[in-house]
Amino acid sequence: MASPSSDLDRERRKCTFIVAELTDIINGGREKTERRRYLESIILNDPIFGNKDSHFLSREEKYSNGVMKSKRLSEVLKEHNIENPQDYKIMLNVIGESLPIGLHNSMFRPTIRDQGTDEQRKKWLPLANDYKIIGTYAQTELGHGTFIRGLETTSTYDPKREEFVLNTPTLTATKWWPGCLGKTSTHAVVMAQLYIKNQCYGLHSFIVQLRSLKDHSPMPGVTVGDIGNKVGLETNDNGFLAMDNVRIPRENMLMRHAQVYPDGTYRKPANPRLAYGAMVLVRATIVAGSATNLSKAATIAIRYSCVRRQTEAKPGELEPQIIDYVTQQHKLVPQLATAYAFAWIARYMMSTYHALHADIESGHLGALQELHGISSGLKAFTAEMSVSGIEVCRRACGGHGFSAASGLVSIYKDWLPSCTYEGENTVLYLQTARFLLKCFRQPSITPSSMSYILIKPLPGARWGVKSPEDLMKPILLVEAFEHRAQRTIKSAAQFLESQISQGLDTSEAMNRSGIEFVRCAKAHCYYFVTRNFFQSTAQLKCSKEIKESLLTLGVVFALNGIADNSGEFLEDCFVTGTQMEFVRERIQYCYKQLRPNLVGLVDAFAFADQSLNSALGAYDGDVYNRLYNWAKRAPLNKTDVHSSYHKYLRSILKSKI
Amino acid sequence: MASPSSDLDRERRKCTFIVAELTDIINGGREKTERRRYLESIILNDPIFGNKDSHFLSREEKYSNGVMKSKRLSEVLKEHNIENPQDYKIMLNVIGESLPIGLHNSMFRPTIRDQGTDEQRKKWLPLANDYKIIGTYAQTELGHGTFIRGLETTSTYDPKREEFVLNTPTLTATKWWPGCLGKTSTHAVVMAQLYIKNQCYGLHSFIVQLRSLKDHSPMPGVTVGDIGNKVGLETNDNGFLAMDNVRIPRENMLMRHAQVYPDGTYRKPANPRLAYGAMVLVRATIVAGSATNLSKAATIAIRYSCVRRQTEAKPGELEPQIIDYVTQQHKLVPQLATAYAFAWIARYMMSTYHALHADIESGHLGALQELHGISSGLKAFTAEMSVSGIEVCRRACGGHGFSAASGLVSIYKDWLPSCTYEGENTVLYLQTARFLLKCFRQPSITPSSMSYILIKPLPGARWGVKSPEDLMKPILLVEAFEHRAQRTIKSAAQFLESQISQGLDTSEAMNRSGIEFVRCAKAHCYYFVTRNFFQSTAQLKCSKEIKESLLTLGVVFALNGIADNSGEFLEDCFVTGTQMEFVRERIQYCYKQLRPNLVGLVDAFAFADQSLNSALGAYDGDVYNRLYNWAKRAPLNKTDVHSSYHKYLRSILKSKI
Repeated sequence: MASPSSDLDRERRKCTFIVAELTDIINGGREKTERRRYLESIILNDPIFGNKDSHFLSREEKYSNGVMKSKRLSEVLKEHNIENPQDYKIMLNVIGESLPIGLHNSMFRPTIRDQGTDEQRKKWLPLANDYKIIGTYAQTELGHGTFIRGLETTSTYDPKREEFVLNTPTLTATKWWPGCLGKTSTHAVVMAQLYIKNQCYGLHSFIVQLRSLKDHSPMPGVTVGDIGNKVGLETNDNGFLAMDNVRIPRENMLMRHAQVYPDGTYRKPANPRLAYGAMVLVRATIVAGSATNLSKAATIAIRYSCVRRQTEAKPGELEPQIIDYVTQQHKLVPQLATAYAFAWIARYMMSTYHALHADIESGHLGALQELHGISSGLKAFTAEMSVSGIEVCRRACGGHGFSAASGLVSIYKDWLPSCTYEGENTVLYLQTARFLLKCFRQPSITPSSMSYILIKPLPGARWGVKSPEDLMKPILLVEAFEHRAQRTIKSAAQFLESQISQGLDTSEAMNRSGIEFVRCAKAHCYYFVTRNFFQSTAQLKCSKEIKESLLTLGVVFALNGIADNSGEFLEDCFVTGTQMEFVRERIQYCYKQLRPNLVGLVDAFAFADQSLNSALGAYDGDVYNRLYNWAKRAPLNKTDVHSSYHKYLRSILKSKI
Repeated sequence: MASPSSDLDRERRKCTFIVAELTDIINGGREKTERRRYLESIILNDPIFGNKDSHFLSREEKYSNGVMKSKRLSEVLKEHNIENPQDYKIMLNVIGESLPIGLHNSMFRPTIRDQGTDEQRKKWLPLANDYKIIGTYAQTELGHGTFIRGLETTSTYDPKREEFVLNTPTLTATKWWPGCLGKTSTHAVVMAQLYIKNQCYGLHSFIVQLRSLKDHSPMPGVTVGDIGNKVGLETNDNGFLAMDNVRIPRENMLMRHAQVYPDGTYRKPANPRLAYGAMVLVRATIVAGSATNLSKAATIAIRYSCVRRQTEAKPGELEPQIIDYVTQQHKLVPQLATAYAFAWIARYMMSTYHALHADIESGHLGALQELHGISSGLKAFTAEMSVSGIEVCRRACGGHGFSAASGLVSIYKDWLPSCTYEGENTVLYLQTARFLLKCFRQPSITPSSMSYILIKPLPGARWGVKSPEDLMKPILLVEAFEHRAQRTIKSAAQFLESQISQGLDTSEAMNRSGIEFVRCAKAHCYYFVTRNFFQSTAQLKCSKEIKESLLTLGVVFALNGIADNSGEFLEDCFVTGTQMEFVRERIQYCYKQLRPNLVGLVDAFAFADQSLNSALGAYDGDVYNRLYNWAKRAPLNKTDVHSSYHKYLRSILKSKI
């Protein structure tokens, strides 16, 4: 057996480009790389954030550990004056766990900033910034997640005492799932139906104190706790909350947009769409998370596949590295390509959001609608593909991929919820589909980034690919996705019309069209991500070798999208059977091209070993020693003979029959 | 909000057939249903097997609990004289956990029975049957899983002392992953390379004592322990084992097939393929497990989807049950259909195995090769589809699907390893593909069940479907899968030939053809399962309503197979774009047909609430009370203020800055 480290050394010597140059490109420039390294070093050099044996902890220990890290992080942020959300996210990425103060920083403070009046900001933000209070955002209830208008929690205005009275009128109205709610937060922004003089004014946000600042005990009328074990995010105390006549001062309703005056007069917000801004930002963050998590998984699986050797190809020869099996390449290289494509779409979304931010602040909401329409689908698309890609990477590591020591298990479990939170994926695809169909029908509202929708695909259109070599041309690849998106959008529109013409009402016609809607939304997203990757990377100034590798990754992303969904391209004969054979042939050709650079391409993500927390994917490739030493530390191995022997086994083995 | 129980009551009243009749069909007859109920009642009435709050236990507690249940099960089996493996499996299904004596019964005892001489059987089986010893089967090593010949553990014969000396010569030779090995087993059948006088005779099986029968401490030279936390199977102590000159008597080599005489003379086995028999049985068991686990997940998700209501379709109306969303049906009904199709293919495999068993025992191994060829692919196919189907069910339950209380989390985690153990799925697909190609090239060896391979598909063949109604005809559906399998097998054969004709050696040509190979194996499996389901259910004697429902489920299974892999049917123009539209149309039509019977179809699986262990899927549908009461019992909620407040939070909240 070859030494693992020599295997990775050899891979690194084969790489055709300078890894550090690619790292800078991924980070967005040399300065950003340096900033990243500085921020990471703060975490990496602090023993509190060490997580060597975190996999062995019980749920309760994990939570407790999370609180410990939260405390340290709040100190570190202050010590180093770190306030930029991007910086904060970089540090969270290295910590690699969902912290019980996560929502304080990602939701509680931003909500007060966005929805609070100047006085409210002045009162609450300093308290929150200094962690004198810790807050969360409580929206979802036991009975309602997707349908926000159906939330049942009430906040009734009492003009006599100038207070709101919050109640959980039914079991299903219990707040359920909000992160950091169960045991940590002292306060929450609670979404509740506003009632004034028996009239309901719909959902509004209220700051409610949940726990005493003296001893952390729940406030009178507040029932609060952890919702119990779940798939991932075990460090986080996702919680429940029931309120029984909990009174808060009138000033605790966030009143930047809507107001309730002391006498109970209500003034509605100028534009209810304003709340979209925060949602778009959260979704852009999920898109970025999809890229990061899939990159981590690809790093682990590709390094391991270069170290792992199995099945002698020729008697007496060294067993091949498993990365040299084409079936293994067909699992991993597409994930690597997807990780790269997602990194660039995340950057696109973030920069578009920031570019439009000024417009949004000043009330110009046209672009917001566009961004909302696109971001819904891209959140769903990237979350879905990254989660399934992480699982492909995990399974590609065989038996060892099941071990918590692989690191892949926790990446998967902690990222899995991204398919459901902040908008369930199917619901989001449907939102994007409705936006696409709206553009399709009303050219005037179609933004320029979506103008392709307006070009009606020709019924007899054929793909201009004449040879496998043609498949290296981005313009032809993008054309295929464009055509597929146009065709499926058109066909979804026709399907909807046919349902309506059968006499169904709109809501049922929309329901019946759901499958077609999801299909066209996915087609649009694949097009959008492919186009963006080719366009953005074409503009890069970098070495020829890096450019070539990025182009080939883009081709892999595109060609696998065609091969995996081949029916959608073949159905109207846009692509022929022969061209599909070219596609499959070229996919293998690209794997071969990328083979020498695979380790370089994952090294370029530059994840610290600690942030991967993986015996299989560490930089030095010393897989087997790490697995063995880790296992020896497992709690079950504390004694040679486990206590259950004395309790149970002994009497089975020694029974006389 | 409608009452959950009234929702399920209404569903049950709508069902067009008698559920108990279908239950009998699924179980294989009224008598089998009664036997099942009897066996289940033994478990259900025994408090030791209660698992209400098992989700809250730590890894160590789960293991300890598993040992407790193992002890009780060993007593119960004796008390009730239960020896039939089918009976045992039914009881394990209700227990719903992987027990630390699992391999004792599924591998250790059967291996001694199959590979031991009469004397060895006489010596070891009574000890094992009475649990005087507890054994496991140790094959996989840290460095080798798939490539069995590469195992490094050695067993060297010492003729002077008439003993074998077992050694773990390298780190990677450490046995790794065997279930029940870490802390429970006193003995193991160890697979090791046999050395006599410096010559290696390949892998053989040896009974090795691992732990003292006096105090359970590891025997001299034995290092043994748990491999640490992993995805699922937390009740099981998958372990590692290293041996340093561990001596065992010559009689401990299992010598039914190969022998080592006292003087070191070696006699090789008559037929090395004999070991295939056990493998086929294990794979058939996995196919059955795929059906069971997917059935459980479908039961939970479909019941929950009838209770859960979300998003008012029309203002003021009751929110619809989410099962009435077409997108939700498109998630769940295919899983239900797959569960049914798998139940029948599992039965087929089991009965074929038993029918051939006599042949195998008497050394007629022709049929065995067939069964081995087919069972590899079917294990991979059913494991893969059931695992992804369980995950579809889990995600279809939205946020609550993430809670351990859903029951879906543990079904998923505990079944996930089936994609990797007993043959990694990709490796198994490749095995089946090689068998298919062998049949394709050598008509003489092709068994009758595979004779379809020999019919060369006509290049201009077209599918005989003229209307959506035609899609209800099994013969036309089977024809489509048959054509696709024939075409992809042929194309894999051609691909391989083209690689060889380019001058590649066979092993590299095979490697390059891997993607094509996997494709044709999957196509074959889909065909095989579809054909079997239609054929078997057509012969049933049962009510018209049940027959109709089973036919419609078969159609859903087939049509989704076509829609999800549409490119494979469109590529050679066998199916046209118009026919593909028929397919999609008819899928929705079938969902509508099945809608009134969905709850009846899952009720018919007749899972006890305890075996589902799910707040979402219990028979009475009382979802929200169960979720709430369960959460209140979570360990983090033992105190209102968690200890981490005093340790960490307090100082953040009270710090003066």
